[in-house]
Amino acid sequence: MIAKSQKHWTGDVHDLLRVGDGFVLADVDPRETPGYMKDKVHAADDLAAGSVQLDEYQERLFARSRVDATNASVLLVLQAMDSAGKGGIIRHVVGSVDPQGVALAAFKKPTPEELEHDFLWRIEKRLPEPGIIGVFDRSHYEDVLIGRVRELAPADEIERRYSAINEFEKKVADAGTRIVKVMLHISPDEQKERLMERLERPDKHWKYNPGDVDERELWPKYMAAYQTVFERTSTEHAPWYVVPADRKWYARLAVQHLLLEALEDIDPQWPAATYDVEAEKKRLAAS
Amino acid sequence: MIAKSQKHWTGDVHDLLRVGDGFVLADVDPRETPGYMKDKVHAADDLAAGSVQLDEYQERLFARSRVDATNASVLLVLQAMDSAGKGGIIRHVVGSVDPQGVALAAFKKPTPEELEHDFLWRIEKRLPEPGIIGVFDRSHYEDVLIGRVRELAPADEIERRYSAINEFEKKVADAGTRIVKVMLHISPDEQKERLMERLERPDKHWKYNPGDVDERELWPKYMAAYQTVFERTSTEHAPWYVVPADRKWYARLAVQHLLLEALEDIDPQWPAATYDVEAEKKRLAAS
Repeated sequence: MIAKSQKHWTGDVHDLLRVGDGFVLADVDPRETPGYMKDKVHAADDLAAGSVQLDEYQERLFARSRVDATNASVLLVLQAMDSAGKGGIIRHVVGSVDPQGVALAAFKKPTPEELEHDFLWRIEKRLPEPGIIGVFDRSHYEDVLIGRVRELAPADEIERRYSAINEFEKKVADAGTRIVKVMLHISPDEQKERLMERLERPDKHWKYNPGDVDERELWPKYMAAYQTVFERTSTEHAPWYVVPADRKWYARLAVQHLLLEALEDIDPQWPAATYDVEAEKKRLAAS
Repeated sequence: MIAKSQKHWTGDVHDLLRVGDGFVLADVDPRETPGYMKDKVHAADDLAAGSVQLDEYQERLFARSRVDATNASVLLVLQAMDSAGKGGIIRHVVGSVDPQGVALAAFKKPTPEELEHDFLWRIEKRLPEPGIIGVFDRSHYEDVLIGRVRELAPADEIERRYSAINEFEKKVADAGTRIVKVMLHISPDEQKERLMERLERPDKHWKYNPGDVDERELWPKYMAAYQTVFERTSTEHAPWYVVPADRKWYARLAVQHLLLEALEDIDPQWPAATYDVEAEKKRLAAS
């Protein structure tokens, strides 16, 4: 499926980026731009056009949820290595939607209270309401990524979590939420360049954390943990998409497109009036 | 004070719109555009320029809060009659800021749980974190506006609330939050036109509520309740601004300007690195 009037794609982005059987993360080149026929120069215009569509789709979704009490919502799950561009996706893709239609949840190191509960406890509380586009900046997948790499939980608990995630996401999807899981995939070299830029620019110093360099040594372990995540949790109701992200402009266009597809699939229509329009016109005119 | 490079204002918006001693709401013409020297045609460009400034200020505020553990934040309180343009302010002014830097709270009819607590209980929970621009779409002022007009609480309880609000806001301001309270002021005729448009356009039908016409009959009572709010709660630490809002483009520019002023007054600077920048460059290069 290609989102309406998204004519700049040569292929089906959904299929090109989706994690299916036999997927191998190591085979994905983070510098590629699968399915996009044009270049960076045109990407800005295409992103702007998509922004208008995304905003209208979300408003329709919201309107329907208010009038028809439908449960449809969208949940974008963003996972990535540091500096891969999650923030840029939120700013430039999600930021084009009316703030009233977006619910953003950033999951950081769990608090002591959160650690007392099951790992999905804090996640469930932040699921989007009907009509809303929810965005998870990191998510329950941290508990099988850093959780696995840094051995923050026993091996059998990590193992248990994959099925717990699948069951949880199935329940969420069945309740009306379209789940779009995205891993922004950058190369270690690109990350090095981006971190170096943070060191070179005083207005970016605050974004740099010396711990980021230590994490780089664990890169292969993280990639292995992602590979396992993809094998165990890319399902029909909650598929993973691996988006090559060395080129920021491509990653933004691709994620925007995945969101547009999810909304197009829901196809929300403006709801009909639940009152007598002509009678109300008369009442209002007389008021 | 005029926000830097906001050269299109002829007067001090802050002073022109601020509710001071002797303020009379009935004397404000909702069609006026105080302090703005240009017209609608230029307003879009000026709003776009301000958007860039607002976004950068907020990022600086956020950066400082992360590194220096400062408490500064901004809280925009929006109150208005239906269709006055709160949603437009959120979409077009607040929407220009990175979604990661904004916390939006819409206060609707209180839930049974909320009604069991003091009226400020639900408000306190939604105050912005350091570094964030909080936006209240309606607020604790509903409890002395509709609360008063529709007699939802005894008269002495309503009376008590004005001082409770002042004490509460003083505490919030002392803790580092710059409070900007805005009433978007439209005329009954303009409201009628806007509601009629909702009835005329199928994509706006969902925004119309027959109860809106009933509320119109209470207009003078609402204006009297607002006048009392202004007299009792426009303080040094949390001033009210009445923004003429019959012209949407003016109201958006004016609110943007008030936010810019609040941020300029905080004047957040990019924080210095808390690590050895040169040493980190070497570590990173070697990684």
